[in-house]
Amino acid sequence: MVTKKEIADHLGISRTAVSLVLNNTPSSTISNETRHKILQAAKELGYRDIAVSPKLCYVLYDRDANDPRYMADLQIMEAKASSFNYGLVFMNISSTPESLNKLRKYLDNREIEGFILSGDVDEKLLELFRHSNTPYIFYGMPPFNQEEDLNFIAFDNKTLAFHATEHLFSLGHTRVALFIGSLDYHIHQLTLEGFREAHTSNGIPLDKSLIQISNDENGYELCKRAEMLQLNPTAIFCANTVIQFGALQYLQSTGVSVPHDVSLVGSGLSELVKVSSPQLTTYYVSEEEKAKTVTILLEIINNRNPEGTFSSRVTEFERFEGGTIAPCKLT
Amino acid sequence: MVTKKEIADHLGISRTAVSLVLNNTPSSTISNETRHKILQAAKELGYRDIAVSPKLCYVLYDRDANDPRYMADLQIMEAKASSFNYGLVFMNISSTPESLNKLRKYLDNREIEGFILSGDVDEKLLELFRHSNTPYIFYGMPPFNQEEDLNFIAFDNKTLAFHATEHLFSLGHTRVALFIGSLDYHIHQLTLEGFREAHTSNGIPLDKSLIQISNDENGYELCKRAEMLQLNPTAIFCANTVIQFGALQYLQSTGVSVPHDVSLVGSGLSELVKVSSPQLTTYYVSEEEKAKTVTILLEIINNRNPEGTFSSRVTEFERFEGGTIAPCKLT
Repeated sequence: MVTKKEIADHLGISRTAVSLVLNNTPSSTISNETRHKILQAAKELGYRDIAVSPKLCYVLYDRDANDPRYMADLQIMEAKASSFNYGLVFMNISSTPESLNKLRKYLDNREIEGFILSGDVDEKLLELFRHSNTPYIFYGMPPFNQEEDLNFIAFDNKTLAFHATEHLFSLGHTRVALFIGSLDYHIHQLTLEGFREAHTSNGIPLDKSLIQISNDENGYELCKRAEMLQLNPTAIFCANTVIQFGALQYLQSTGVSVPHDVSLVGSGLSELVKVSSPQLTTYYVSEEEKAKTVTILLEIINNRNPEGTFSSRVTEFERFEGGTIAPCKLT
Repeated sequence: MVTKKEIADHLGISRTAVSLVLNNTPSSTISNETRHKILQAAKELGYRDIAVSPKLCYVLYDRDANDPRYMADLQIMEAKASSFNYGLVFMNISSTPESLNKLRKYLDNREIEGFILSGDVDEKLLELFRHSNTPYIFYGMPPFNQEEDLNFIAFDNKTLAFHATEHLFSLGHTRVALFIGSLDYHIHQLTLEGFREAHTSNGIPLDKSLIQISNDENGYELCKRAEMLQLNPTAIFCANTVIQFGALQYLQSTGVSVPHDVSLVGSGLSELVKVSSPQLTTYYVSEEEKAKTVTILLEIINNRNPEGTFSSRVTEFERFEGGTIAPCKLT
């Protein structure tokens, strides 16, 4: 079997030129004559036509490179995609025009059959997919405009917060604090709703001072604040593991025992959950549920759902049994 | 230039089907198989509107999905690749025959121009690339068989350990402990060498009891062990941030002040470095150095380095100024 390199050597030209032509990439730098020579040589030398595997693309939108939460998701998607013989292209896109153009190029040339869109989805990203025929699915969050028909698979953070808070109630806690990030984010709004509803549905009065918000999601500072305000919660639900971990560090530094004096429960299954000592108790979405994103996207691609859009809310969660919750001592 | 009609004739199917697929029109009547066949034929016959961008592939080999260290690397590679108009395919490969076959398929069909190979590279993976003409570069570690000619860019962990240890000496520390993982791993062997050479070159006698090894890289346990053995180091060099963080947690839980009683220095720039309180002081490879992997791979692809193989050892490191080191109190 002849390679591109051998064709290039045979013709005495660069491997890039051969690649561009054989991959059929638009290029202004290669003359028709060269193109013809390459195709001719490929034919004569018996270059086997390249088989291109079908591809999906996982887009991480507007997220910091140091946010590790998406690596596990990416690996789950890749494993699932490859079980269907799909390759997975990874693309990190920000909201700058250049970065969005990169994505637009892939939408235009249609080499990717479908897109999984994760991260902090905004109007600019939505706009691209509204005007494209390319199959896609938003992953992790419902689109903020709930009126609009878009394909999405969302984790129901409201239900997660409801379950987590209710579980603390079942252990006898009644003064449960909520540590969340900015309410500008949909995810934190949903968490707040679930926390509230758990109180209502269990007949436990909600002391609003126990809701503490940190725009930079600093659990250490939130815990310090709760101490200075003498809020005295016996348990805390933290919107993510970074907040939860910061809270744990503050409590440990001040000699407060977790879980004996204060219980901590969180959301997500990041590295922190396991390297922490004690390990963190959290609610999370299983790999199987996450992997369904690929199955659904393939159904959209294959048009088994031609009427309207697809949406799904994941309401089943697993609990990672770390060592940060215990029954309330006061009961 | 081939037309849709010619593609339809070539495949013996209707022109409508070809149009629907190539115009990307949603349709329930075309099977996935037919769709693939059409796209494949369009590509092979040179249909103009299907442009395939050239691609590189980032292979994460034999690594746990929850290891977050690679997300940042992947994002660096993707950004660099896309600056050259290359797309990046992500592939998670384990050492099972099925998983290796997945990789072999991509090597055979040659749609990917070059591979970046990261993770715990083993003989099985090497074997695949020895027998392939596809350009590749091993990333992060030198191949364990140093005699062999393979393309690699390696971070010189020996030099990193040397610098880190020497810096502790410059702060007056002489009882410096080394916390590392299994010496079956090349990275830990190199770290040990650098640690040793720093002692020799600074004329500081090495107390071998200060070298403590944990096969599961548990820094918490290593620190507890050092206490029970009464090793009394005034500073510790930890082979990675997970070990360093575990050590910090143990010291804090026993009321030892970091950095005032014990200094901790580590290697790498993971999430833990920043969420930890205090933040961890570590040595790490800059993004620019890492991104060079893509530039070099493209040079290999373009054959600017036709003689032999390419190898590079990164010996320049940055220091992240966390709050875990201080001058030795005893001097």
